[in-house]
Amino acid sequence: MRAEIIAVGSELLTPDRIDTNSLFLTAQLNRLGIQVVRKTIVGDEPNSLQREFRAALELADVIIASGGLGPTEDDITREALAAVLQRPLVQDDEILKDIEAKFQRFGRVMPQINVKQALVPVGAAVLPNPRGTAPGLWVEDGQRIVVLMPGPPSELEPMFIEQVVPRLEARAIGERLVERALRVSGMGESAVDQAIAPIYKGYRDVQTTLLHFTGEIHVYLRQWSTDRTAAEKTLDGIVERMRLALGESLFTTKGEEMEQVVARELTWHGATIAVAESCTGGMLGERLTRQPGSSAYFLGGVISYGNELKSDWLGVSRALIEKDGAVSAEVAQAMAEGVRRRSGATLGLAVTGIAGPTGGTEEKPVGTVHIALADAEGVQQKMFRFPGDRGRIRGQATVAALDMVRRYYLHKSALKAQ
Amino acid sequence: MRAEIIAVGSELLTPDRIDTNSLFLTAQLNRLGIQVVRKTIVGDEPNSLQREFRAALELADVIIASGGLGPTEDDITREALAAVLQRPLVQDDEILKDIEAKFQRFGRVMPQINVKQALVPVGAAVLPNPRGTAPGLWVEDGQRIVVLMPGPPSELEPMFIEQVVPRLEARAIGERLVERALRVSGMGESAVDQAIAPIYKGYRDVQTTLLHFTGEIHVYLRQWSTDRTAAEKTLDGIVERMRLALGESLFTTKGEEMEQVVARELTWHGATIAVAESCTGGMLGERLTRQPGSSAYFLGGVISYGNELKSDWLGVSRALIEKDGAVSAEVAQAMAEGVRRRSGATLGLAVTGIAGPTGGTEEKPVGTVHIALADAEGVQQKMFRFPGDRGRIRGQATVAALDMVRRYYLHKSALKAQ
Repeated sequence: MRAEIIAVGSELLTPDRIDTNSLFLTAQLNRLGIQVVRKTIVGDEPNSLQREFRAALELADVIIASGGLGPTEDDITREALAAVLQRPLVQDDEILKDIEAKFQRFGRVMPQINVKQALVPVGAAVLPNPRGTAPGLWVEDGQRIVVLMPGPPSELEPMFIEQVVPRLEARAIGERLVERALRVSGMGESAVDQAIAPIYKGYRDVQTTLLHFTGEIHVYLRQWSTDRTAAEKTLDGIVERMRLALGESLFTTKGEEMEQVVARELTWHGATIAVAESCTGGMLGERLTRQPGSSAYFLGGVISYGNELKSDWLGVSRALIEKDGAVSAEVAQAMAEGVRRRSGATLGLAVTGIAGPTGGTEEKPVGTVHIALADAEGVQQKMFRFPGDRGRIRGQATVAALDMVRRYYLHKSALKAQ
Repeated sequence: MRAEIIAVGSELLTPDRIDTNSLFLTAQLNRLGIQVVRKTIVGDEPNSLQREFRAALELADVIIASGGLGPTEDDITREALAAVLQRPLVQDDEILKDIEAKFQRFGRVMPQINVKQALVPVGAAVLPNPRGTAPGLWVEDGQRIVVLMPGPPSELEPMFIEQVVPRLEARAIGERLVERALRVSGMGESAVDQAIAPIYKGYRDVQTTLLHFTGEIHVYLRQWSTDRTAAEKTLDGIVERMRLALGESLFTTKGEEMEQVVARELTWHGATIAVAESCTGGMLGERLTRQPGSSAYFLGGVISYGNELKSDWLGVSRALIEKDGAVSAEVAQAMAEGVRRRSGATLGLAVTGIAGPTGGTEEKPVGTVHIALADAEGVQQKMFRFPGDRGRIRGQATVAALDMVRRYYLHKSALKAQ
C-alpha cells in the first residue's frame, strides 16, 4: 500500500512553521508496511486543497490529511474532501453533544461556530477526539482510504495510534517494517558512527540512521521484511554487537527517554532524589517530573539562581562561593550535599554552570558546567564544556545530569556483581 | 508572483529526515514579495518528479527544486525537468572542467559518474557551486522560472542568496509582505476568533491565521502590498481594533514570548521574583530563565513536589495541607507567601495542581490547578481547570502563572493611572 500525507494550513507555508506530524505518521505507516510516496503542504484555500485531494486519490491507496478541522473560517479540509468525493455534509448529533459537553466541563458555552465541527461527509466513520473538539474522519472511496486528522500533535498522535492504526492493520498486507531504536549519551555523533559503522556496514538490507539530539545520539535500525521473526533476530544480533561497541554510553535499545531510564533505576533501588539547579533553572526538575508517578522518587528541588539562595537554602558557605566562584566543582558538590541533606533524599543532584550568552571568562568560558551527585557515602563531580547557544547548553547539562544518575547505578550494580 | 518549493529525495520520505531548506527559501522568497503557495516532497523516482514539475508549472510562476543533482543514478532532477520541458541535455564543458579541477585539488581523479553533473538543459543558465560539485540551474520557460539547487543547506543557501535572489529581484514586481503577530493568553481559540472575526472579515486582502499553542493563541495578520506604508497603516489599524476586542488577554502585538513580556515588566518595575512549583516541577523556573540576563529579576525557586518540602522549605503548615489538601487555594497562597518571604523577592509565584494521569478526584479532577501571586500587600489566587494530558496541563499552568504576573502589572499601572 502507498500513502500520501497532506498537511493543511497556510501557517505551514510561512517561514515560522514546518509540518512535523508527517514524521510521526511516516513512522506509524512504515510499521504497518505502508510506504509514504509523497508529502504535500497546502494552504487553507479550497481550490488548492481540492486539487491536492484529487491528485492524491490518483496516486495513493491511503491519504492522511492533518489540520483544517477547527471551527474557524479557514478550516476547510472537511468541506474540500466532501466536494471532491461529491458527498453531502450532514450534521452528526453525537459529535455536537460531545463538543457541547466539553465546553460545559470547563464552565463555558459552546460558541456557535463550533457547530461546523459536527459536520460529516455521508458514509464517513467518525474518529472521536477526547483531547480536543475536532473529531477525525475515516472515509472510504472504493479501494481508497482518506483519513482526516486534527493538526495538534497532542490530538493527532493518540487518535492515530488508537483509532487509525487498528483500522489500517486490518487492510495492510505483506511486508512489515521491523526496527530498533538505540540511544547514546556521552559520545559525539562521529564517535558513535566510528564505533558502529563496522557493524552496520555488514548488513546491506538493514537501513541504519544516526540522528543528533541535544545531549543524545539516536541510532535507528530498520528492515522491511515479510518474515518478521527472521528480521527481529537479525536486528537483535546487530543490537547486541552495538551494545558491546558502545559500552555504557548506550542507555536504551527500546527508544526510551533518559528520564524513563533514570526513573526505573530509582524505583528499582527504592531511592529518592532531590535537585539543586543553577543554570538549568528548573529544566532538570521538569524532566524528572515529566513521567507520571514521579512523586514516588522525586522529592523536589531548589532553583538557586542567585548566590544568596545557594547559601540560604542549600547551606553553601559564602566563603566557598567567594573563593571558587558559583561555577566550580566545590560549589556543585556543596549544592548536591546541601539539597540531599535538607530534603532527606537518597541522592542529591546539582548543576551549576554558565549558559551564556554573557558571563563567560578566559578560564570559565560560556558552556562550562559542573554537575555533582551526592549519596550517603559522599559526592562525585564532573566538569563539562558544552557547545552551542544558551538553550542547547542548558539542554545538554540536563541530559548529562540525568546520565550521571544512570551511570551511578550502572557502577553500583557492577560492584554488587563482583 | 507565486512560488512552489519541491524537495527531492527518498530520504525525506522516511521518519527521520525533514525538509528544512523550504523554511530558508520561504523567508527569502517572502522578502522578495514572492508567496509560497505549495510545498511538495517527492522521492527519487522519475515519473513522480516529472508529474510534480508538470503540476507546479501550471500552478506557480517560480519553482524552486532542491536535491537530486548529485552524480549517482538516484539523482534525476536534471533529467526529469529536461523531459518535462522537452529540452535536450547537453554537456557543458565549463562545468566539466570545474568539477575535474575540484577533484584534482583533493588529489583525486574525477569518477566517470560525475560527468552527468555537467549536463544542462538547452537554454538553461548555470549557477556555479564553489562549495560542492553539483552546479545549480536557472531555467526559463515562457513566463515561468524553474531553479534547480543542490540539497545540502551549506551549498543551497549561499547559492540562493548570491545567484538566485539577484535574478529574482530583477523579476519580482515589487509586492512585499507586511505582517503583525498578536498573542493572546486566557482565551480559547474559538472565543478569540469570535472576538476578532468581525474585524478581519472586513479586510479581504489581509490574510488572518489563528494558531493554537499550549496556553496561547497566536494571530498572524499578513498583507501583500506594493505600498508598504499603506499596508503598515492598515495592519496597525486592525491591530488597534483587535486590541480593544481582546482586551487584556492580548499580551503582545510583536510576536514576543510570554516570558519576554514578564521579564520586561519585572525589569521596568525594578522587581524580583521567586517561584514555588508543585505540579509544574520546574517548568516555570525554566521558562523564566530562558531569557538571557534573567538573573537580574529571577532569584530562584523551590520545587516542592512532596508535601514535606512544602512545609520544611516554604513554611506551609502541615495542618493546612491536612485540612485543605496540597492542591488548594490556601496552600497555593501559603506557598507564594512562603517563597517570597524566604527568598526576599518582590513577588512570590506559586503553582499547585493535579497534572495526572492519576491523582484526580470527584471534586478535584485531573487538570485542577491553583496559582497564587504574593507581594508586600498580600496574595491573590486563581483556580483553573485545564484540559489535555499531563504535558499540556503543566504547560498551560506555566503560561497561566506567567500571565498572572503580567496582568498584575497591567492592573498596577491602571491603578497608578487613576
